This record gives sequence, structure tokens and C-alpha cells, in this order.
Amino acid sequence: MSLKSTLEIDIVKATTSKIDSVDFENLLFGNIFTDHMLVCDFKEGAWQKPIIKPYEPFMIDPSAKVFHYGQAIFEGMKAYKDENDDVWLFRPDENFTRFNKSAVRMAMPEVPEDIFIDGLKTILEIEKEWVKKGLGNTLYIRPFMIAIGSGVIAQPSTQYRFMIILSPAKSYYSGEVKVIIAEHYSRAANGGIGAAKAAGNYSAQFYPTKLANAKGFQQIIWTDDATHTKLEEAGTMNVFFRINDTLYTAPTSERILDGVTRKSLIDLAKRDGLNVEVRSVLVEELVNAAKDGSLKEIFGAGTAAVVSPIVAFSYQGTEYQLPKVENSFAQQLKEDLTKIQYKLAEDTFGWTVKV
Amino acid sequence: MSLKSTLEIDIVKATTSKIDSVDFENLLFGNIFTDHMLVCDFKEGAWQKPIIKPYEPFMIDPSAKVFHYGQAIFEGMKAYKDENDDVWLFRPDENFTRFNKSAVRMAMPEVPEDIFIDGLKTILEIEKEWVKKGLGNTLYIRPFMIAIGSGVIAQPSTQYRFMIILSPAKSYYSGEVKVIIAEHYSRAANGGIGAAKAAGNYSAQFYPTKLANAKGFQQIIWTDDATHTKLEEAGTMNVFFRINDTLYTAPTSERILDGVTRKSLIDLAKRDGLNVEVRSVLVEELVNAAKDGSLKEIFGAGTAAVVSPIVAFSYQGTEYQLPKVENSFAQQLKEDLTKIQYKLAEDTFGWTVKV
Repeated sequence: MSLKSTLEIDIVKATTSKIDSVDFENLLFGNIFTDHMLVCDFKEGAWQKPIIKPYEPFMIDPSAKVFHYGQAIFEGMKAYKDENDDVWLFRPDENFTRFNKSAVRMAMPEVPEDIFIDGLKTILEIEKEWVKKGLGNTLYIRPFMIAIGSGVIAQPSTQYRFMIILSPAKSYYSGEVKVIIAEHYSRAANGGIGAAKAAGNYSAQFYPTKLANAKGFQQIIWTDDATHTKLEEAGTMNVFFRINDTLYTAPTSERILDGVTRKSLIDLAKRDGLNVEVRSVLVEELVNAAKDGSLKEIFGAGTAAVVSPIVAFSYQGTEYQLPKVENSFAQQLKEDLTKIQYKLAEDTFGWTVKV
Repeated sequence: MSLKSTLEIDIVKATTSKIDSVDFENLLFGNIFTDHMLVCDFKEGAWQKPIIKPYEPFMIDPSAKVFHYGQAIFEGMKAYKDENDDVWLFRPDENFTRFNKSAVRMAMPEVPEDIFIDGLKTILEIEKEWVKKGLGNTLYIRPFMIAIGSGVIAQPSTQYRFMIILSPAKSYYSGEVKVIIAEHYSRAANGGIGAAKAAGNYSAQFYPTKLANAKGFQQIIWTDDATHTKLEEAGTMNVFFRINDTLYTAPTSERILDGVTRKSLIDLAKRDGLNVEVRSVLVEELVNAAKDGSLKEIFGAGTAAVVSPIVAFSYQGTEYQLPKVENSFAQQLKEDLTKIQYKLAEDTFGWTVKV
């Protein structure tokens, strides 16, 4: 995949930069944005000329469809700086493809590749000082699209806004993560929008997660909504289970997001000679494996946290502790992945793309 | 329920009214808004003083949580004008209660009754010229709440905006409605947010509905997502089935909205001596009843359309026509309800509330 930029973009530079006021050693995730944003509107059936301009609030009608009917999708990506000050993206084509799959599912227009990819490249060139060197430093990239057409009839909008905003991030460490296995609440329906990165999927999790937090758990492992017997995702991440020396993760489906980190970890595990099985894992299997000691690891996988090891899970009121393992697959795969992302190891997969 | 207004509200009147430019005989649903809107922000853990001010776009940050995680809920209500020029609401307490149930499910703060109800009364007093006399004329009321806090971490917002906007509407007639019974797509999960009036529930329907439209059907009858055997809702409405002289509608659940029109029609049907059964109706039952001629009517029920008769349904590629009936329950119940709403019949239920 090449990133040649042939797209015409209007560029309005910020007169001053706020970069010097940012403490890059103490960043809260997703809290500070860079000096510029990319904006591209869809109206009268066509995408308009994109503009990169100073990051700022914008005007929107109270009846905008995004507020009433939730037509909103996003992606999460990161840019990395190597030791030569080059800036790299990781599998941006995967995010682009998934973004447009989400768009189709939410009855929104697909974004052309040049607007998404070349637009991203252009804004990253402008903001390259915001990508800091050193393992763990990234510039988090948030492409998103919202329905800005006005009117409260429950129909798809005719006007949309695609935007890219950028937020510097340190490696995401959320402390020791204990999870609770969902017995009642769920994140996705069969024939629903669980496989789309649609805004509504995330707010739907907030209340059950709050209930879990109140019980001392940071996240929920989601199960299938019909039977609550199959393990599907962990919070907003895909989830992996290691039983003895085999790594399991659920196949993607209408209910399960096709995560870029998930699929990359599967490939890395195979490359490393680990045994990987992509199949549904039952709650019962997990509990039995925890009881007989064959359950070695559980970890979430996603762009924000990369790999998030889980130290304990609760099911039907019983808490099961994960053992401390010497040769952690989670740790190994995280290192494999981040070394490729930061160009510290050879990228034999062709995943990294220079900006 | 009384509507005494003790709440302090800032009021900034519009300097001119656009009412004279509106063609009240030719209104598109939800397309034109009145001169004012109510705005009330929640921040630092508290609801601020509401303001009624000219209807206009507002500024919002690109990272506002409503855009990324879909924290957004709404209600649909109507105001009616009687022959004495008095303006009436229909069961506003039901909408208020449901709004706060939606708020809890979406991890949003509940709106105090005085802000919702007294705020609504105050803006309706200001906009009473927008409520036109005559059966079928209404002022559609859209209370809604969105997460306006900024930052792309996937957590509930700490800042919210509650608003009420108003749109004059004619009786909603969508032509002959043919529906397709969902065999693959679905609108709600067990343990999901189907019972909440959450924005994301609506956009999730747009794509399947578009597919149905392309096949010549206006709406979808949603079935349970696990088995697709139980009939649940029709488009964005609750749904009723008449088999012989019994009226059936599904019980409310986590997947089915507790509709105000639905529950009012059940009470009216009982008052009229009709046989009503609140229970799940199977797709199989419906198909069999269509085949043996005992299926008399299907209709949707909701605030926007009140009652929406369905003339045909499709299942597994076969289309079943509904008969033309003399004594339509749909017609009778719609008249019952609208007569109460417009104060043309006695309101023995105490449903109507004078503004």
C-alpha cells in the first residue's frame, strides 16, 4: 500500500502551537489534541474538498441526526516515531477498510481512500512534532464520521462530516485488571451492529461497566447475548485465553469486532510457533481450566492498550485468580508487536507504512 | 400530576418569529423548528439553570463523547390544541419517567422533574401559537440529552446537555405500509439497550430498513435476535396483531420499548371491551393465521404516527396480504386515542395535562 498524496486539501495553519504547554510525560489518554484537525463534509451526494485547520469546536444544529439517531462511527489508530525521526502507521489499510464497513452498516456514505489515507498522511506531516520518540510514545489517531444533517425524522442523514483528530498518548497502563464475566448484560445482538465501530456500541457498555466497577472489577468479559455461555470480548477489546500452551480467541462475527491488534497477534503467535486456535471458548471451559490450573493467561487486545493482561475473573460470584507465569504469551506478543510498530524489529509482514 | 412551575429559567426571546413563513398545511415531519429551544447543562455533578433562547446551532468540541461513544437519549411527545385554544400534553409523566430510565441505562445523569416538566410547560407557553387547532395538527416535542464532555477515552462523560426542541407536525401518514419480517437483522440484544430510547438503537435500523425498502417494503417487523421466531416491534413502533377478534402485542422487555401509545391502546381496547392479550406472538402463528384467514389486522403504534396500519407482510420470500376489515380495531383505537388527546372525548383515564 502506498501513501502517495494526490488529493487536494485546503490547509489553514494554526498561528501558534500549544505543543510547548503539553507535558508529554504525564498524558491522560485522549484528553489533549494537536493543533490541527482534518474536516471533510459530505453533502448533495458527494464528498467535498477536505480542509486541515486549527483544532476547534464547530457549530451544529440541535436537530442533527447524530444527536437523535446515533449515526456515528470511528476508528482508533496510532502513529509511531522511529529512531531516525520517521513517522510510521500500522496497517492503516485495515482501519480504512473497517471504517467503510462500519459506514455501510450504519447507512452512512463510504469515505474515499484518498480522503482517509492521504488526508491522514497530510495532517500527520503537519503534526509530526507531536509524535514523540521512544517506546510507548504514540500519537493516537481518531478518524470519525458523524451525521450532521438536521431534522428529527428517523431516517439516515443526507449530510455527514468526516474528521481526523490526533491526541498524543503514552503507553496505556490501567493497573491490574480484574474482569467479571457477563451473565446478564451484553454488548451486541445477532444481526446487530457489534462488528461495527459504531458509537452506540460503546455507550451501551458504560452502565454495566459501572456496575462491575462498583464490585471491584475494571472490565467485563462479554458473552453471547442469547445464552451467555460463549466468551466474546473484554470491555472494548478482543480477548485471548491461554489454556496450557494453546492460545484461543473467538472468531470474528456480527457480534465481534475484527480487531487489527487481534489479527496481528494471531499472526505473530503463529510466527513464533505458538499454538493458536480461533474458536469460541465457553465460560464453562474457562472455569474448568481455572479450577484445574490449566488456565495460564487471559488478555485483552486493542489499539489503545495493545495488550492488557487480566489477573482475575469473576463468574457467578466466585473469583478465579490467574497464575503468574514465567513465559507470558501476552508479554511476548506485546513485545513482538511493539517492536514492529516502532521499527525495532524487521517487519516481515509488511504491516508498517511510512508517512 | 400538576405542572406548577417553580423553576427559575432564564428566558431570552427571539426578536422576530419565523412562524409566518411556515406553511402549516404542508409540513414534512421533524423538519421545521419553532423560534425557541430549552437548554440545560449538567457539569461538575449538577444541573445548571435552564435557559430558553432562540433556536440556533451551538458550538461543540470534535472530541465530544456523543460523537464517539453515542451517549444520547431522547423522547417523542406531542402538544395538542383544543377548541378553546387550550394546549394539552398527553401523559408527560410517562415520557419523563422513561427518559430517566434511558438515562440510567446509558450512564447519564437523570434530569430533575422540574427541569423536564416545568421547562417543557414554559417553552410551550412561549410557543403556543405554533400549536394549531384541528384534528391531526400537533406540535411534536423532542426532549433529548447528549454527552458534551470532551475527550476520546471510552468512559461516560462528565458533562451533558439536556434540550427541548419543538416541531409543528401534521398527522403522519406514510402511505400503505408493507413490512418484511426480520430473518437476519435485529434491533436489540438480551441485556442490551433496546428498551432505552437511545440514539444508537435507531441508526442500527437504518441499513436493514434500506435493504427492506429496496425490496418494496417500508418497514421491518423485528424479531428476537436469538431465534427470529418472536415478533417484537415494527420499525420504530410497537406492534399489534389482531387474530380473529383478539388483539395481541408483545410484553415489554429489555428488547422492547415501553411505548406510551402502546400502553394507552391496551387500556382503550380493554375499555372498549375488546379482547387483548399481552404475550409474545410467534412468526409461525402469524403466518398460520394469515393462511387460514384469521389474521385481520397488524398495526404499529407510536407517538409520531399514532397508529400505522400494515397492509401486507413478507416472510421467507412469501408475501401475505391483510384483508380489508369493516370494523378495524386500528381505526377504532386511533379515534379513541386522538379524541382524548384533542379533548373531543372525556378523558376518564386522567391522561391529558393542561399546559
